[in-house]
Amino acid sequence: MKTFLDCIPCFFTQALRATRMVTNDVEVAKRVLDELGKKVKDISLDSTPPEIGKYVYHMVSEITGEPDPFKRVKKEHIDKALSLYDSLKELIERSEDRLLTAVKFAIAGNIIDLGAVKEFDIEDEIKRISESEFAINDYEKFRRYLEKTDSVLYLGDNAGESVFDRILIEEMKKPTTYVVRDAPIINDVTYEDAVESGIDKVADIVSSGSAAPGVVLKLCSDEFKKRFRSAKFIISKGQGNYEALSNEKYPIFFLLRAKCPVIARDLGVNVGDVVLKGVNVR
Amino acid sequence: MKTFLDCIPCFFTQALRATRMVTNDVEVAKRVLDELGKKVKDISLDSTPPEIGKYVYHMVSEITGEPDPFKRVKKEHIDKALSLYDSLKELIERSEDRLLTAVKFAIAGNIIDLGAVKEFDIEDEIKRISESEFAINDYEKFRRYLEKTDSVLYLGDNAGESVFDRILIEEMKKPTTYVVRDAPIINDVTYEDAVESGIDKVADIVSSGSAAPGVVLKLCSDEFKKRFRSAKFIISKGQGNYEALSNEKYPIFFLLRAKCPVIARDLGVNVGDVVLKGVNVR
Repeated sequence: MKTFLDCIPCFFTQALRATRMVTNDVEVAKRVLDELGKKVKDISLDSTPPEIGKYVYHMVSEITGEPDPFKRVKKEHIDKALSLYDSLKELIERSEDRLLTAVKFAIAGNIIDLGAVKEFDIEDEIKRISESEFAINDYEKFRRYLEKTDSVLYLGDNAGESVFDRILIEEMKKPTTYVVRDAPIINDVTYEDAVESGIDKVADIVSSGSAAPGVVLKLCSDEFKKRFRSAKFIISKGQGNYEALSNEKYPIFFLLRAKCPVIARDLGVNVGDVVLKGVNVR
Repeated sequence: MKTFLDCIPCFFTQALRATRMVTNDVEVAKRVLDELGKKVKDISLDSTPPEIGKYVYHMVSEITGEPDPFKRVKKEHIDKALSLYDSLKELIERSEDRLLTAVKFAIAGNIIDLGAVKEFDIEDEIKRISESEFAINDYEKFRRYLEKTDSVLYLGDNAGESVFDRILIEEMKKPTTYVVRDAPIINDVTYEDAVESGIDKVADIVSSGSAAPGVVLKLCSDEFKKRFRSAKFIISKGQGNYEALSNEKYPIFFLLRAKCPVIARDLGVNVGDVVLKGVNVR
């Protein structure tokens, strides 16, 4: 997906939010906005939003001197998600379609996204998504592809959400490689966060080789690109990965909640809708 | 009120919205955002938002070549409001407290604000506000001051809303001077709009001498400033005038709906709340 004009005001909002995770100093925050302002002319609408996001959040880190503004809040989200783990596993035990329930939980976890939303209630979200229909529902294709594949490439999105990813990985019962960001960016899941979430017990964890908040292939390591291009079954979580990959010609299942109007419009759904969309799949 | 950091992303949103009133050309809109970006560093947080707004909207006009992007939509709003005039007058006839009902209608009209909101339903708003309580309620003081005064200085805000102002002016039954912007800015009420709304039948119409979207005294004409400083009873409609005047030391009654989080916080109310606040009044 390309960057839309509407993303530009949103980058300012995001830069401000990230700065405030680190400092209440108004002058520092103003300096962040000033710097971003100077760069607007260099934002190409042909880039994907995660490419710009990478720049924006790195700039916040540079000016505030804090390489990982979301460190504390990521830990909180992982702990919160882990505290729900047992009860979610029980709900899966009692459900009619275990895989579908796990898919829904994995999408519910996608509400933990501090790039796109300010506040959320994960328990509300689990309840809401468990009861709601997918706006785009390629679940049958997803199940069929999963049955046939001998491995899964799973592109993680946010820390905390990663615990819900783990539950889905456990339910899929296929050898899985879980892909994380190469370095801290927003509240996106890194190697350390994935381990904290217990992903190491159920999957191999690999880095995309990039700290963009979305798997932008041209920014990824050669090793990762090779792995990606040969994967038969790819699960892509969240908006950032969708923005990065929606125009690629690989078979991918996107699992996400549409949290911003630009992405909702791109997908042809409403803000808040739950999406399981297979692209380049039959 | 000073400009808050959160106003900066909002200026980008507003610039984009104003540009789209004139053109669908993405390159033109990008140029507007680029220009605004370059100016962020010059935005002083000690300015009031209408001072920045004046710059932003004039820049949109300059780049798009359209001095009055909201001209058509202002006419639509005035026509819509005029079509409701008779039924609102009837509701006042049937109400227990005619003045209070007229005040509520005047505040309901404040939803017609294309700087702060994208879409609205004026009939819904009239119903909602007629039934709701003020979050800040200085109505008794308002009534007392009105009884004592021999004239009213009424600072208009938006075109369309002006028809609701007219209804309040008719109900107050005092010689009234209605203040308009000196030139088109956003959908704010100008001399021409005020006449279209029938204000000329019930009040003298004067210009503030400035095209800022709020009565920023230092930008107003000397003639207007003299009038303002000697006024005994001032009604200020809407967010823009509140932003411009909230720190001034004159007795003013602010009538508005809090439409953005920054103003809501400044007033100590919630977004959506209805406010009748007297400042420097006993």
